[in-house]
Amino acid sequence: MTTLFPDDNFVLHTDAYQLTMMQTYFQKGIHNRHAVFEMYFRSLPFKNGYAIFAGLERVLDFLKDLHFSASDIAYMRENPMFDDDFVDYLEQWRFKATVRAPREGEVVFNNEPILQVEGSIFDAQLIETPLLNMINYQTLIATKASRMRAVVGNQGLLEFGTRRAQEMDAALWGTRAAFIGGFNATSNVRAGKRFGIPISGTHAHALVQIYRNDYDAFKAYAETHRDAVFLVDTYDTLRSGVPSAIRVAKEFGNRINFLGVRIDSGDMAYLSKGVRKMLDEAGFPDAKIYASNDLDEETIASLKLQGAKIDVWGVGTKLITAFDQPALGAVYKVVSVENEFGEMVDTIKISGSAAKISNPGKKQVWRITRQSDGKSQGDYIALWDEKPDQADSLFMFNPAYPYLNKTIVDFNARPILEEMVVDGQVIYQSPSVQEIQEYSAERLDNLWSEYRRGLNPQEYPVDLSQKAWDHKMNLIKDVRHYVDEVAKDFENRQ
Amino acid sequence: MTTLFPDDNFVLHTDAYQLTMMQTYFQKGIHNRHAVFEMYFRSLPFKNGYAIFAGLERVLDFLKDLHFSASDIAYMRENPMFDDDFVDYLEQWRFKATVRAPREGEVVFNNEPILQVEGSIFDAQLIETPLLNMINYQTLIATKASRMRAVVGNQGLLEFGTRRAQEMDAALWGTRAAFIGGFNATSNVRAGKRFGIPISGTHAHALVQIYRNDYDAFKAYAETHRDAVFLVDTYDTLRSGVPSAIRVAKEFGNRINFLGVRIDSGDMAYLSKGVRKMLDEAGFPDAKIYASNDLDEETIASLKLQGAKIDVWGVGTKLITAFDQPALGAVYKVVSVENEFGEMVDTIKISGSAAKISNPGKKQVWRITRQSDGKSQGDYIALWDEKPDQADSLFMFNPAYPYLNKTIVDFNARPILEEMVVDGQVIYQSPSVQEIQEYSAERLDNLWSEYRRGLNPQEYPVDLSQKAWDHKMNLIKDVRHYVDEVAKDFENRQ
Repeated sequence: MTTLFPDDNFVLHTDAYQLTMMQTYFQKGIHNRHAVFEMYFRSLPFKNGYAIFAGLERVLDFLKDLHFSASDIAYMRENPMFDDDFVDYLEQWRFKATVRAPREGEVVFNNEPILQVEGSIFDAQLIETPLLNMINYQTLIATKASRMRAVVGNQGLLEFGTRRAQEMDAALWGTRAAFIGGFNATSNVRAGKRFGIPISGTHAHALVQIYRNDYDAFKAYAETHRDAVFLVDTYDTLRSGVPSAIRVAKEFGNRINFLGVRIDSGDMAYLSKGVRKMLDEAGFPDAKIYASNDLDEETIASLKLQGAKIDVWGVGTKLITAFDQPALGAVYKVVSVENEFGEMVDTIKISGSAAKISNPGKKQVWRITRQSDGKSQGDYIALWDEKPDQADSLFMFNPAYPYLNKTIVDFNARPILEEMVVDGQVIYQSPSVQEIQEYSAERLDNLWSEYRRGLNPQEYPVDLSQKAWDHKMNLIKDVRHYVDEVAKDFENRQ
Repeated sequence: MTTLFPDDNFVLHTDAYQLTMMQTYFQKGIHNRHAVFEMYFRSLPFKNGYAIFAGLERVLDFLKDLHFSASDIAYMRENPMFDDDFVDYLEQWRFKATVRAPREGEVVFNNEPILQVEGSIFDAQLIETPLLNMINYQTLIATKASRMRAVVGNQGLLEFGTRRAQEMDAALWGTRAAFIGGFNATSNVRAGKRFGIPISGTHAHALVQIYRNDYDAFKAYAETHRDAVFLVDTYDTLRSGVPSAIRVAKEFGNRINFLGVRIDSGDMAYLSKGVRKMLDEAGFPDAKIYASNDLDEETIASLKLQGAKIDVWGVGTKLITAFDQPALGAVYKVVSVENEFGEMVDTIKISGSAAKISNPGKKQVWRITRQSDGKSQGDYIALWDEKPDQADSLFMFNPAYPYLNKTIVDFNARPILEEMVVDGQVIYQSPSVQEIQEYSAERLDNLWSEYRRGLNPQEYPVDLSQKAWDHKMNLIKDVRHYVDEVAKDFENRQ
């Protein structure tokens, strides 16, 4: 596969307005002013009770050696949107900001910072788009995968979605996210090679069609592979597929590992029971039944409720595209910026919808757990210079409904945002995907099951500190005053 | 950004079962048998009346120089799924098959071949997954974009979806597909560089927050750019945003091109009318109103119906993820394969659901148009050795409801599948995206408007030739007979 620009390092994978704003900052001489931007999403995907943070390794890799290549510079010089002095500056620019984030696999919630960039206005602005793109997608898929893992319990869960993924990167990084969320293996060989994820797959309908009958196809497969899962629904599952699989399994005996059969169409509840009965009667009680047919957590739960005899679940489209909600709406907002006197001033974005007003100021998220058993009590969002004192009690309240509040004692407070990049240098070494998967499962274990259930979970408390809340209210008041002044001035000018 | 495998050419971007089947073909000595595979989708996305074929350039680029790299071979050697003799063979393998497809931008329909691969079983099997992945996504997005273009008429339509796209490739190739489907420009700078698509964007809320008031931000922008669209909803659209935009536009006069203002939140119908009135009264009747806020074809239609004064539409999430249906379910089936005697034998996949039974045999799709005005009469799927005779009449019938039929005279018949790759060599030079966009618009013009409307379109006729239909019925009979024999034999063995 050719690359049109061999020197591509993806720095132009951003929105044009980041670059036009950067030109303004540069030409107005404010590009090196210090700023803090934070990423968060306003609501949890799939009406779930939590999300699994993923995409960090991809972000860190993106930020390494980020620069404008010769062909990037040439492209920008030809575009009249950009001035020469600005492009000259880009030519020698290097990324120098600090990035804080949760560890990958961490459990995160809505309306709390899940990533923080601190550095020059210039650097922080440029990376908004690619960081959102990467974190939004992987966090979405890891969360979807986690919902499926919850439904299947300890059964096998395989990712089969590449053909329906939204292009190549989605297949690759979606598979990685699915593994973090609890999947066991993938069909995508390149993901297997790149991440060390186990790969899975035996054969498709094509093999049976090419041999024009089930028996010859299964026999050919058995002659050329030790592990065998036969796909039994090419012509007729119960009348030709399973009989042929059983015949081959008997004929080959110990020469193959007859792992089981796969059903890819039809009434999975009915068929799986029939298949189970046939396999048992033929003396193969350990042969497993694999199912794959537009499955998601809802159909899996329904099949289990119907007593379907399925042991391993292959999931494609509904996972890799997050079919019922294919985007996580994380946003990235400036929360604090240096003014002309060198002082940091906190900023706010106002909206007609109260839920969309941003939380001003540089913040940390503290995960509050009970000292006795480590179970989560809620997340406490505090301004950066605050620190919950574990010796003291903690007053937590819901920022949307301040009368919902509680006072916590005997707690531990763990900061969620950790330094991953310092002054442009990546200081964090990503663990393996297996380690991330384990870390995620442990973090999830600390959540009460009421927050973890897939349907109608309890809302996990994500509370603002009193100081952060008062600060927000003051800024809203300031903005209202400003708007009134502008409106009055405009009227006077008419 | 680092690449873990510098020699990666994406050949492992496939499902593991393609490789395990290939090992069977190889070790059974049938890997060079001739075969024909065809791609098709069973239903149109978004209940639309047509789809826009896209993704071909990506596929052709993928097939160029396709081979297993040294690190691919090393990975496979370590995996016990694969035998050494097979991996040795892969090491020297090169793609040698022929690929036929519609031109990009062509209008295509459900249940007709939209791509055909002819060559060795081995080659055709390997590329199933990547070809589906690329064609499914770009065709989906081009079709979604085409629906939006139909609703906005000649107004501006901008792609703003990168931050919500399903990873980087989706942003890049989705933008390309959106352009093919009729979009005017994109915010994605890398797509602008790679495809020559115009890029679009001015500034975000961050600029206003950093200056802490609308006027100073717009002024700074106007001092550093010639073209200006001011984002007016950071604090209050009608009371501070638009007044500040008007003030800057008046102060700068001809020193800037005041193109208009953008609204990104709130009640777009109400706000746009208020903004229009203010701009007109201030003497800026030509200033345009840009809107962007989770738009799709439905909300755009609704806003137009409400008389919203919006001139340019920025669309993000709902387009780039095809939010209401994020996957096109194209499949890829073997339709004909060489047997042990060197004869081509057509194959079928049976399903309990009648609509899912595949159409056997190598086929061509003929687009039937009226000689008088070039308007489409329907598509006629015929076996490869058939050719509709334009001097004669043509009997067309609906394969699902054979009593729906008609006889056509005075028609032209144009073959839709053209040779793009011959014996592994790409012979087709992709046009520019601008040319593809124009080609697509022309093809769409030939469709009656009844097929083009977004809501409840008429079903376009996609009919099988009598010969193809009879052939299918015979094969179904053969399979039924085969299944009965296997079932009887299995009973006898018990």
